[in-house]
Amino acid sequence: MKFLLDGKLIFSKEIDEEAKEEIKRFLEGEAKELLKKGVPKGKEGAKIVDYKVEGNKLLLTIESGRYARAHDSILRLKKALSQLLGKKYRIGVRKVEIDLYKVEIETDREIDIKIPECEVISEKDKVVLIFKDMSESDIRRNVIDRAVKLILSELEKEEDLTKKVCKIPPGTIVREYKAKRKITFDEDVTDVAERLGWIKKFPGRGQWFYAPPMASLFRAFEDLIVEKIKKIGFVEALFPKLIPLEIMYKMRYLEGLPEGMFYVCPPKREPELFEEFVKEMMIKKEIPIEKLKSLLRNPSYVLAPAQCEPFYQFLEGELIDVDKPIMFFDRSGWTYRWEGGGARGLDRVNEFLRVECVWAGSPEVVEEIRDKTLKVAEELAEELDLEYWVEVGDDPFYLEGRKKEERNIEFPEVPKYEMRLYLPYIKDERKGVAVTSANVHGTHFVEGFKIKDYKNRKVWTGCTGYGITRWVVGFLAQYGFNFDDWPEKVKKRIGKLPEVPKLVSWP
Amino acid sequence: MKFLLDGKLIFSKEIDEEAKEEIKRFLEGEAKELLKKGVPKGKEGAKIVDYKVEGNKLLLTIESGRYARAHDSILRLKKALSQLLGKKYRIGVRKVEIDLYKVEIETDREIDIKIPECEVISEKDKVVLIFKDMSESDIRRNVIDRAVKLILSELEKEEDLTKKVCKIPPGTIVREYKAKRKITFDEDVTDVAERLGWIKKFPGRGQWFYAPPMASLFRAFEDLIVEKIKKIGFVEALFPKLIPLEIMYKMRYLEGLPEGMFYVCPPKREPELFEEFVKEMMIKKEIPIEKLKSLLRNPSYVLAPAQCEPFYQFLEGELIDVDKPIMFFDRSGWTYRWEGGGARGLDRVNEFLRVECVWAGSPEVVEEIRDKTLKVAEELAEELDLEYWVEVGDDPFYLEGRKKEERNIEFPEVPKYEMRLYLPYIKDERKGVAVTSANVHGTHFVEGFKIKDYKNRKVWTGCTGYGITRWVVGFLAQYGFNFDDWPEKVKKRIGKLPEVPKLVSWP
Repeated sequence: MKFLLDGKLIFSKEIDEEAKEEIKRFLEGEAKELLKKGVPKGKEGAKIVDYKVEGNKLLLTIESGRYARAHDSILRLKKALSQLLGKKYRIGVRKVEIDLYKVEIETDREIDIKIPECEVISEKDKVVLIFKDMSESDIRRNVIDRAVKLILSELEKEEDLTKKVCKIPPGTIVREYKAKRKITFDEDVTDVAERLGWIKKFPGRGQWFYAPPMASLFRAFEDLIVEKIKKIGFVEALFPKLIPLEIMYKMRYLEGLPEGMFYVCPPKREPELFEEFVKEMMIKKEIPIEKLKSLLRNPSYVLAPAQCEPFYQFLEGELIDVDKPIMFFDRSGWTYRWEGGGARGLDRVNEFLRVECVWAGSPEVVEEIRDKTLKVAEELAEELDLEYWVEVGDDPFYLEGRKKEERNIEFPEVPKYEMRLYLPYIKDERKGVAVTSANVHGTHFVEGFKIKDYKNRKVWTGCTGYGITRWVVGFLAQYGFNFDDWPEKVKKRIGKLPEVPKLVSWP
Repeated sequence: MKFLLDGKLIFSKEIDEEAKEEIKRFLEGEAKELLKKGVPKGKEGAKIVDYKVEGNKLLLTIESGRYARAHDSILRLKKALSQLLGKKYRIGVRKVEIDLYKVEIETDREIDIKIPECEVISEKDKVVLIFKDMSESDIRRNVIDRAVKLILSELEKEEDLTKKVCKIPPGTIVREYKAKRKITFDEDVTDVAERLGWIKKFPGRGQWFYAPPMASLFRAFEDLIVEKIKKIGFVEALFPKLIPLEIMYKMRYLEGLPEGMFYVCPPKREPELFEEFVKEMMIKKEIPIEKLKSLLRNPSYVLAPAQCEPFYQFLEGELIDVDKPIMFFDRSGWTYRWEGGGARGLDRVNEFLRVECVWAGSPEVVEEIRDKTLKVAEELAEELDLEYWVEVGDDPFYLEGRKKEERNIEFPEVPKYEMRLYLPYIKDERKGVAVTSANVHGTHFVEGFKIKDYKNRKVWTGCTGYGITRWVVGFLAQYGFNFDDWPEKVKKRIGKLPEVPKLVSWP
């Protein structure tokens, strides 16, 4: 970054020869130090490139990098000179004026953004900000620094951190498995399930009522997975699912995907007003939404979107021993994502059930554990002869919150692996359904939640989500709905498939 | 209800003898019919008790019941007379004025309520509303009908429907069981659990992080209960937990306990605005709540407070065969109640886990099933030698919504039984912790969700909630935290009690 300033100091009276000498001495000597003050070792401060005294003005050309930025430097000079000239010559500094100020930010990216009080020019190898005729108060209003911040965040937003972090290009398939048997079923799982009455549409968008046959299949897959993750050392805990906003803020999820969550408001303590609300509702025979809104507190929670949130909170501010990695899993309830218009069928829903593993330990161990959790899923798929592949993920949920800022965070070589089951009914072979996502976060959460090792060794975290709802979708897509066609392993877990409840009018 | 009106019509000029005769004829004849118009057969309309013509005024005393209410009737008379006198005598009706209006509502209840523009007097056997000097526009503003409605709902609110419905007085203990062994443990479960690190406070009010030992105890009790309810014929389904407001409205829960739920808002589709939100958050280093609010849609869901909501929705508008009762249970996740300041410890929380049974069938069968679900809980308590009692509940959740209105709903003789485990550490013997609540709803939900039998036979519903969180509290309160002291049945389920994760700084 480069800051180029043309401006002047305007004095209370003409500068005589003697004072001029004084100023010269100052600018050539002391000032050089002054403009290096507070600059980290090895880094450049600001330089006075040129100056000229004219009548009651001192014309200045100042150049700097990101430290002692030119517009701060001119203020430093003002202060020093008023002291210097004040006592000895009774000369005060009336004004500071910047005639032209250029800020250059190197980048190979083109951006198109409007910023008040400033002209933005996107050149081949840089973005240039141009400010004209700024008074001292403009400078103190911080107009410049804010504009720079905006540009930087805009540039970082554009660049995809995942691509930067990832040592293997996202989308790369690292392993795959082809079913040994011939897969014949090719209908749309959601359609058939609905027709058979295994599920029923729920009024809420992206939500389903899962009838007994489907529920039993869920439980079978849950058991199969839980059994395996227990073997590799995970113990069950019960994670809250109603997450205070502050936690999402610390996770930087609120920065990353604020538009993808459900927000929760508790009611106010206003018995009388609720009385009125009810009366109005009874009279109008409809829900008076505006009145209801006035009876709610500010949004203060979200519905857990990632399921692992409470784990970091659990460890917040604690000292751990990385030699004893902490390995929890949770299967206590639903998690939620607002898919907006995107929700469809059984594989893309707003409300879903997962078995979530989350752990903390040393970087090496954390990556080992990640590999084990992935292995578990692949084992299961192969035991059930389910066709799958594992690819490098292109959207680690936790990196979203990083796109907009750069700090000294350690990232793993591969932040996310994603395992997908093949869906015969979807023509696009490369799609499938993502059933397991294995993430290593490096120090992302550790840093946000101040989790430390008692010997100050490195602490990393990881989490792996097994989407039960989706495992079932993938399973049904490859095996169909006929219990007898299913693998023994699954049939044994279920025992006898419960019947669809017989309503006269449904299914 | 009685409406007594003293008022007048004021004409555009003096009434001469001829016109007076005309008016007399009208009031004695036609008017009588006019004031019966729209009144149901067998019901009384309005009567003109007295009248007098004076100069340009017609003084009227009108009396009515709840039909053709006196204040409506005087408007009818105005209309008719302006037509009658207009053509023939060029006399118009300038104004309608009510000098004194009394509305009497029979009740043996005293109420104290203020209503604008009206005086409320609560007498021994009735409430009297008095309105004075009302203009026609006052009448048309509906001031009177609204006031009456308010009083009625106030009166109905006062009367506790539960007491009215319940054949056995609420609070009556119908069964109890004393532990065979001597109970020695008497510490506060929450305190000990926190000290031992079985739970950890979660930032959200009334929420806990349940560490492995506690989680395993949960699962043990869940298994024990699920095993038993499966035996009596319940099959598992997975119920959504994010419930659209309309469903709560149909359940009349929104009338009953609107102040006891968490409300959920999805985000708007406003990518740019969310960008701004994030930028502001990054610069201010805090969550810009106001901006966030502006980015949310209206509250359109609540977090399931009762857990059985989706069952009625599942059956909405369907025809069933009451000979084949539908019996589902759900244990798929957390349910929520906003306890406001009331949340404390482990036994009164905002977020809790239950196994919920819900069923529909003929009245007899529904009550039988209710008894079985209760028996299951009592059996379990006795097998574990847990001290408990069963009492008649005084607050069936679903009746809340009924207090404010009376309709032809069938109610069971006992809407709710509640089973409580004894808590040695609470001095008040009569308190304990409610672990199971068994409800029969009569036709309450069937009516709201239009669920019918295909032969038009009676359909009732019932639901029983087993509060796992609370079962565990009661169990620990009576047995303490030492695994070896626990009954075999529980130890066997758990196998080996998982350790508390060893953090250096916790517990």
